[in-house]
Amino acid sequence: MGKLLIVGTVAFDAIETPFGKTDKILGGAATFISLAASQFNVDSAIVSIVGDDFPQEYLDLFISKNIDISALEIVKGGKTFFWKVKYHNDLNSRDTLVTELNVLADFKPVVPEHFKDADVVMLGNLHPNTQMSVIDQMQKRPKLIILDTMNFWMDNALDDLLNVIKHIDVITINDEEARQLTNEYSLVRAARKIQKMGPKYVVIKKGEHGALLFHDSNIFFAPALPLDEVFDPTGAGDTFAGGFSGYLAATDNSSYENMKNAVIHGSNLASFSVERFGTERMEGLERSEVNKRLHQFKALTQFDIELQ
Amino acid sequence: MGKLLIVGTVAFDAIETPFGKTDKILGGAATFISLAASQFNVDSAIVSIVGDDFPQEYLDLFISKNIDISALEIVKGGKTFFWKVKYHNDLNSRDTLVTELNVLADFKPVVPEHFKDADVVMLGNLHPNTQMSVIDQMQKRPKLIILDTMNFWMDNALDDLLNVIKHIDVITINDEEARQLTNEYSLVRAARKIQKMGPKYVVIKKGEHGALLFHDSNIFFAPALPLDEVFDPTGAGDTFAGGFSGYLAATDNSSYENMKNAVIHGSNLASFSVERFGTERMEGLERSEVNKRLHQFKALTQFDIELQ
Repeated sequence: MGKLLIVGTVAFDAIETPFGKTDKILGGAATFISLAASQFNVDSAIVSIVGDDFPQEYLDLFISKNIDISALEIVKGGKTFFWKVKYHNDLNSRDTLVTELNVLADFKPVVPEHFKDADVVMLGNLHPNTQMSVIDQMQKRPKLIILDTMNFWMDNALDDLLNVIKHIDVITINDEEARQLTNEYSLVRAARKIQKMGPKYVVIKKGEHGALLFHDSNIFFAPALPLDEVFDPTGAGDTFAGGFSGYLAATDNSSYENMKNAVIHGSNLASFSVERFGTERMEGLERSEVNKRLHQFKALTQFDIELQ
Repeated sequence: MGKLLIVGTVAFDAIETPFGKTDKILGGAATFISLAASQFNVDSAIVSIVGDDFPQEYLDLFISKNIDISALEIVKGGKTFFWKVKYHNDLNSRDTLVTELNVLADFKPVVPEHFKDADVVMLGNLHPNTQMSVIDQMQKRPKLIILDTMNFWMDNALDDLLNVIKHIDVITINDEEARQLTNEYSLVRAARKIQKMGPKYVVIKKGEHGALLFHDSNIFFAPALPLDEVFDPTGAGDTFAGGFSGYLAATDNSSYENMKNAVIHGSNLASFSVERFGTERMEGLERSEVNKRLHQFKALTQFDIELQ
């Protein structure tokens, strides 16, 4: 059982899709990452921050999933980070209606002593300097550092982003962000450029069009499972990252071959996440459902052509 | 060796992409289909029409690939169908600048006697009634009838399209067209509706995002091979259809399992087609190149997770 350190937001989300809307519900990158990772045999902890408006039942949810929240700082009198979003009809684009940083504005992550030797560090989307400060606190170089980021930091803190990218093993990024970061339209070329910036492994997330894993000159692809209906895409990328990092921590094997499996597990879990609002689907997800869908993934992608 | 009857346009294309432009070069659905199918051990014939402005060297190309052109009608004093297109910078959208139907306006396909017993009929994009007239001329029901179509016929000849669709086994259609035909955004639901219209097999082409095969409740997915550069997407869908139908005719096996392989072969050949203008890449394509890329397809998609 590997140790997985998860850094990222824990938040309130308010979501509107063509299918309905929610008031403030549980959200945040670290939330989705940790719930997905809890499907595997890992010893995980969250480093994050919330206000004292954060309900006990959400804290209890983490605890019930064996997620260590001793480094989830609760600021007295503070308000939890809040994000309100409205998705367009095709769910491929969205408008952010409200972003209230609240306690997140002064977040200085403190890695707890008992996780300074984590095997895998999963850095959810945050300011690159915040991500870097976590790396700096580790007692020894983790076996694997995975970083997720987004276009906002390319626009507003590019130098800091390029600096932290030098220190990581895997970056997860979406297709448009990969293009923006490298000024290359071809994802093959974009990945090659990103590999030269530091990370030996590049995961490019294409939403409903799947995910690509690049390493050296190898490319592996996992489709998104075709679904009757995508209900709410919120957290799909973080759920992918949680499945990916959780599987790698649990198996303690960062080979390219095993990372292919991690991409499949991440895609598999993301396919559940989008079936309900927010974390709803992930909260009660059973191992048997996960296994059943892995069979579907295999049927979807595996073929038997004799090669010459 | 199966008999493959190919019906579709043989044309002049003039193409502009961000990488360059061409004068009139060889194009047309039946052209791309037949060149791709010629990679397999098939006895193929084209039913189509051109004017006497169609160069002998293009006729010789078909003959050199063992494609029977005895039913390629050459209209004296007539002009060959001409299509001029300009692709936008991302190659995912395009403007048709010129469409001159010319001899195609009066095309009445005549299936040659020696192909009225074809095993596989590949109906390239044409007026649905033209496609239907080919089916009506067959001496016996072919083992497999595959139809490609496009949104133009949904807008202008929907009833005729719905009629011919009842008589076929496989439809190949792109994602937007599948949505238009069914009024369903989810491709899973769209495919299910199309299956109820007639075809037991539905192939949804997603361009750079791959292709989906639906049969009963099964789904199979083939990605497009990630390339350094897509040079000209013209003919990619027809090349896919040619590889798909050619492989099925050559193997004389229309099972779902074999159709999965056909989807891979179609995707594989399409990945070459887009590397040069028009038919250039397909004309000299070697079997060894094709086999090498099949290995890449396998490396791209195959994984080894032990299922429970």
